[in-house]
Amino acid sequence: MDFKLKILGCGSAIPAFGRYSSAQVLSTHGKNFLIDCADATQFRLKALKVNTSRLQHIFISHLHGDHCFGLISVISTFSLAHRNSDLYIHAQPDLQKILQPQIDYFCRDMEFKVVFENFDPLKNARIYEDRSLTVETIPLSHGVPCCGFMFREKEKAPHLDKSKLEFYNVGVEQMKTLKEGGDLRCPDGTIIPNGEFMRPPTPAKSFAYCADTMYRESICPIIQGADCLFHEATFSENQRDRARATKHSTAKDAALIAKKAGVKKLLIGHFSARYEFLEPLLEEARSIFPDTCLATDGKSFEW
Amino acid sequence: MDFKLKILGCGSAIPAFGRYSSAQVLSTHGKNFLIDCADATQFRLKALKVNTSRLQHIFISHLHGDHCFGLISVISTFSLAHRNSDLYIHAQPDLQKILQPQIDYFCRDMEFKVVFENFDPLKNARIYEDRSLTVETIPLSHGVPCCGFMFREKEKAPHLDKSKLEFYNVGVEQMKTLKEGGDLRCPDGTIIPNGEFMRPPTPAKSFAYCADTMYRESICPIIQGADCLFHEATFSENQRDRARATKHSTAKDAALIAKKAGVKKLLIGHFSARYEFLEPLLEEARSIFPDTCLATDGKSFEW
Repeated sequence: MDFKLKILGCGSAIPAFGRYSSAQVLSTHGKNFLIDCADATQFRLKALKVNTSRLQHIFISHLHGDHCFGLISVISTFSLAHRNSDLYIHAQPDLQKILQPQIDYFCRDMEFKVVFENFDPLKNARIYEDRSLTVETIPLSHGVPCCGFMFREKEKAPHLDKSKLEFYNVGVEQMKTLKEGGDLRCPDGTIIPNGEFMRPPTPAKSFAYCADTMYRESICPIIQGADCLFHEATFSENQRDRARATKHSTAKDAALIAKKAGVKKLLIGHFSARYEFLEPLLEEARSIFPDTCLATDGKSFEW
Repeated sequence: MDFKLKILGCGSAIPAFGRYSSAQVLSTHGKNFLIDCADATQFRLKALKVNTSRLQHIFISHLHGDHCFGLISVISTFSLAHRNSDLYIHAQPDLQKILQPQIDYFCRDMEFKVVFENFDPLKNARIYEDRSLTVETIPLSHGVPCCGFMFREKEKAPHLDKSKLEFYNVGVEQMKTLKEGGDLRCPDGTIIPNGEFMRPPTPAKSFAYCADTMYRESICPIIQGADCLFHEATFSENQRDRARATKHSTAKDAALIAKKAGVKKLLIGHFSARYEFLEPLLEEARSIFPDTCLATDGKSFEW
């Protein structure tokens, strides 16, 4: 199943040049997963036509406002729109302490529950699992406890090759046998081994989200080979000192991580308010990792 | 001095048709006053080029999310931008209880103070005063305690007529005498009475902001003769029952209030998400109060 990513906001904390702040929606297997939730996210969900009835899980990387201030508005709007399916917020425990009193005050007639699924951002652990997908934390290095999220589709089973089934004119009973791993016995007594009919599964897909963080090589084993990596690139190399001071990455840092982790595609975002034009950051990253794109507001990526 | 009003958002609680939620900036005498502060207000302030170094006072009408959820983002962004002048939030006391813990958690290195100026929204009282302006509360009728705000420029003193000063070739000493109320003694002994030089002051200006509320005639004496009235018009008459149930006004209600209070101009806003096209609401109001405008996002009004 395809992964589709919508970028709701690519700016960092201070508004600039019409960019919204961090929020993305990953869609796969009929579900929408919201990753971070800055101020204005409810407007961005609407503007980008995200079906919020399919949005049941929100993942919050860390407790800086440009990653979580939009939560109360999203919850309140869901409540006013008479949502009735529960909403799961995956975050570190402090969020619940801050958000619950607001929910209690502003959303008194809510017809759904907000369920906090607390995790420790400093540990690499699986924090979500359904039939098709797992999500694990990617511990990052930022000014406050922070982690990214690795979304992995589950390995799929091998499947039957339709053209072979047609060629051998396989019937219902024989199909069942093949699915159970048995061989095909033809009417003339010939045996066609099971392997002849099986095709390897479509490769499982993956997405790694890494914001906010300074360069941290130890994330590479976790995100190794990801189909797509979003890595923050708040600064360009000309602001290396500022990146170090604020524990953010440069575009070069993001590209080095992408290269080292052998990912297929790199998206950069979380751009500082000082950059009106982002092409220099893109060029900086592409000089190291050619398959890089700017994850700017409103863009979609599919793989 | 002119009053200038910028509409940051004209929608009600649920995002629709690209409208942002309630926030307006009134500018006069070199100051910007923020009235209500929905989610995304920080982005709207930036988009509409509001000089936030001149913004020291925020007035919050009531504690529904679409009027106050943007506060923490505004404060946090001011903090990140190293603001150092204090910020005054005029609101009912509950807001402080909800907002202070968020400020304590998210804005630890703040270089300015957030000063809560608490008021009782159920009473008509003066809650702000400076050299040029007063603000008083306008108790409204909504589902929760709610008030509007009446901004009144102070009465100005009569001023000297420049052309008369030139005609009589008035010198510095004589000007001082005139300012103090004395008459002009000409070199030939003629006395010109003080009144000859004085012109009546420019009329003091005013703005009344009334959201959210059902039709409430008792506000008319407070807003009587206002130069400009913003009155919510969440619904049109075809949703009269819905207006009553949610304690909101129709466009007709807003126009009746404007007419009864003898204001000069009416702006309507806080439109329900059910209306894609707002012209019918405008027509409904204009049929009763012709000088009505839609206070839609991004518009400015000056008087």
